[in-house]
Amino acid sequence: MTKPNRVFNFSAGPSMLPLSVIEDAAANLADYKGCGQSVMEMSHRSKEFGKIIEDAEANLREIMNIPDNYKVMFLQGGGTLQFAMVPLNLLRASKKADYVVTGSWAKKAYQEACKYGDIRVIASSEEDTYTYIPKFSKDDIRPDADYVYVCYNNTIYGTHFNEVPDTGDIPLVADMSSCILSEEIDVSKFGLIFAGAQKNVAPAGVTIVIAREDLLGFADKKVPTYLDYKIHADKDSMYNTPPCFPIYIAGEVFKLIKEMGGVPAMHAADVAKAEKLYNYIDSSALFKGPVAKEDRSLMNVVFVTGDAELDKKFVAQAKEEGMVNLNGHRTVGGMRASIYNAMPMEGVDKLIAFMKKFEEENK
Amino acid sequence: MTKPNRVFNFSAGPSMLPLSVIEDAAANLADYKGCGQSVMEMSHRSKEFGKIIEDAEANLREIMNIPDNYKVMFLQGGGTLQFAMVPLNLLRASKKADYVVTGSWAKKAYQEACKYGDIRVIASSEEDTYTYIPKFSKDDIRPDADYVYVCYNNTIYGTHFNEVPDTGDIPLVADMSSCILSEEIDVSKFGLIFAGAQKNVAPAGVTIVIAREDLLGFADKKVPTYLDYKIHADKDSMYNTPPCFPIYIAGEVFKLIKEMGGVPAMHAADVAKAEKLYNYIDSSALFKGPVAKEDRSLMNVVFVTGDAELDKKFVAQAKEEGMVNLNGHRTVGGMRASIYNAMPMEGVDKLIAFMKKFEEENK
Repeated sequence: MTKPNRVFNFSAGPSMLPLSVIEDAAANLADYKGCGQSVMEMSHRSKEFGKIIEDAEANLREIMNIPDNYKVMFLQGGGTLQFAMVPLNLLRASKKADYVVTGSWAKKAYQEACKYGDIRVIASSEEDTYTYIPKFSKDDIRPDADYVYVCYNNTIYGTHFNEVPDTGDIPLVADMSSCILSEEIDVSKFGLIFAGAQKNVAPAGVTIVIAREDLLGFADKKVPTYLDYKIHADKDSMYNTPPCFPIYIAGEVFKLIKEMGGVPAMHAADVAKAEKLYNYIDSSALFKGPVAKEDRSLMNVVFVTGDAELDKKFVAQAKEEGMVNLNGHRTVGGMRASIYNAMPMEGVDKLIAFMKKFEEENK
Repeated sequence: MTKPNRVFNFSAGPSMLPLSVIEDAAANLADYKGCGQSVMEMSHRSKEFGKIIEDAEANLREIMNIPDNYKVMFLQGGGTLQFAMVPLNLLRASKKADYVVTGSWAKKAYQEACKYGDIRVIASSEEDTYTYIPKFSKDDIRPDADYVYVCYNNTIYGTHFNEVPDTGDIPLVADMSSCILSEEIDVSKFGLIFAGAQKNVAPAGVTIVIAREDLLGFADKKVPTYLDYKIHADKDSMYNTPPCFPIYIAGEVFKLIKEMGGVPAMHAADVAKAEKLYNYIDSSALFKGPVAKEDRSLMNVVFVTGDAELDKKFVAQAKEEGMVNLNGHRTVGGMRASIYNAMPMEGVDKLIAFMKKFEEENK
């Protein structure tokens, strides 16, 4: 088999997957491990798929060190559905929740929650185009809040919580869509973590939810069945047909991470990639990073030249060189290099070399 | 490349996909048509994926002859989420809807709708274990009902509506999960059609919704954003990240159906397969079909020996012969051969030959 001619895909998501996982999936696509079927065709109630989903959960539990009193679910509907499911399930007593608004996804989550309870913004960096993580303390949280909500890594703006906010006894909910498995996380400090898988884990179509058991079971009877976490948790994500193929790929990625040394190994590689890129940006006369240094994301590196036309030229020329999707989110412009776990150092090196050449040619 | 050693998979869903589609997907998995990425990795906002989803919709519109005043959506959450989305969107005036209960999926849809309005069962075959499609007429429908709901093909019980019920001006909603693309349907007779794709179309994880435009836009402001059809319809299924890979496979299946002569060609092949199998069952002294002949499904052929132990033996022996998932649904037992579009006649012939041998050995 010839080596496929692959580009470096800097997309914010869906994004790159490990080539070995893709090639193994291709080799098994018509006949998974001799069972005569594709994973795409397997009954979700079959023994074969049962093993796939059980292994996926077991490996995720192992690499994230998920405590036994947390349920793991593989759901559909992406972050957008989670924005509703979180309040519909977790607004269980006072119907109050406090949100930290660090970007447009956090804001969408906040707006959705406002449909269902007494929701307050306790910190926001909106006025500064979300270029930093706003500070807040335990005292800013209403003592009877049902939960506090944060978006742990802000894909569009390239910011990241560099420590777990202290919310005391109030459950902390975090959207980790764009940083899950890139750093060690003490799951026990969270009430619920969710992550759309299409950034660091799998193709689009599966959302991972990790939830403390005692927080489940409070959804109102009028909540749509699919939106009740308890239903899924009690049936091990098999209440209805799960998105089997994306779950299979997620499981293969979990296995690979385990083999490669677990989340600490991912983190070390991610730090090395991000530092190299940020160091170059900080030394550049052309490129600037708008984000406060202490809040920089390891996953989404945002930078600009300050000239929208030049930014466009950069993105177009990079594409010709086999580095695609370097444009910033359509709402902010500029550039963004999303360097998730599956992006090799080779891709970052190539990007930096190209940036240097571009800077030389455009000074 | 050696021919993969494939079994005949009679699963009710997820189930068989055309081998040519699987093999083409495998060949393109690491580098889709020379773009250097897998479809699993593509940004959903990329030109490449844009073409995939546009072509998928265009080809579905063509093979189903979908009128221009209908929107096509590719959603997540399966039939279970549709059971809630239908009432949350279509209970738009009287908040009344009339349901026909022809099986446990229709009953679940009815129960879910009861959370949101004044829902009535206008016909049911529950007392006879759903072995037939109950009759009802326009007069049974409340004149101010917002819609009438049917499950067009009942996967568990092997029954099927052999004509479109006349509901006059009241929009007819149909769950076509297990029969879509197996027969020509006059879409203009329906207000909304939905289908989980994992039976006749694609891997699990995408649900097709075809909805008359004038019925959309009435969801209450409190309805979760993801559950509002109008949001998805206005953004061509790209409000949030869609399940890209399952949509890609669906698109490949639509293309193949077009090349093979469209839905009429699928229907002719499906009729030939089902008739052969039903004819043998009707002539058998051992196997019996419990379903009223005029309501038999072309997709799910249900049969029993009348002896639960013998049924189990049949399923186990068939599996050894490379015919898997012939067990009936866990709630009813017996046998079920799901023979969707992708099941070749060869599979049905092999099944009949095995049934004859089994009958001979167990008389």
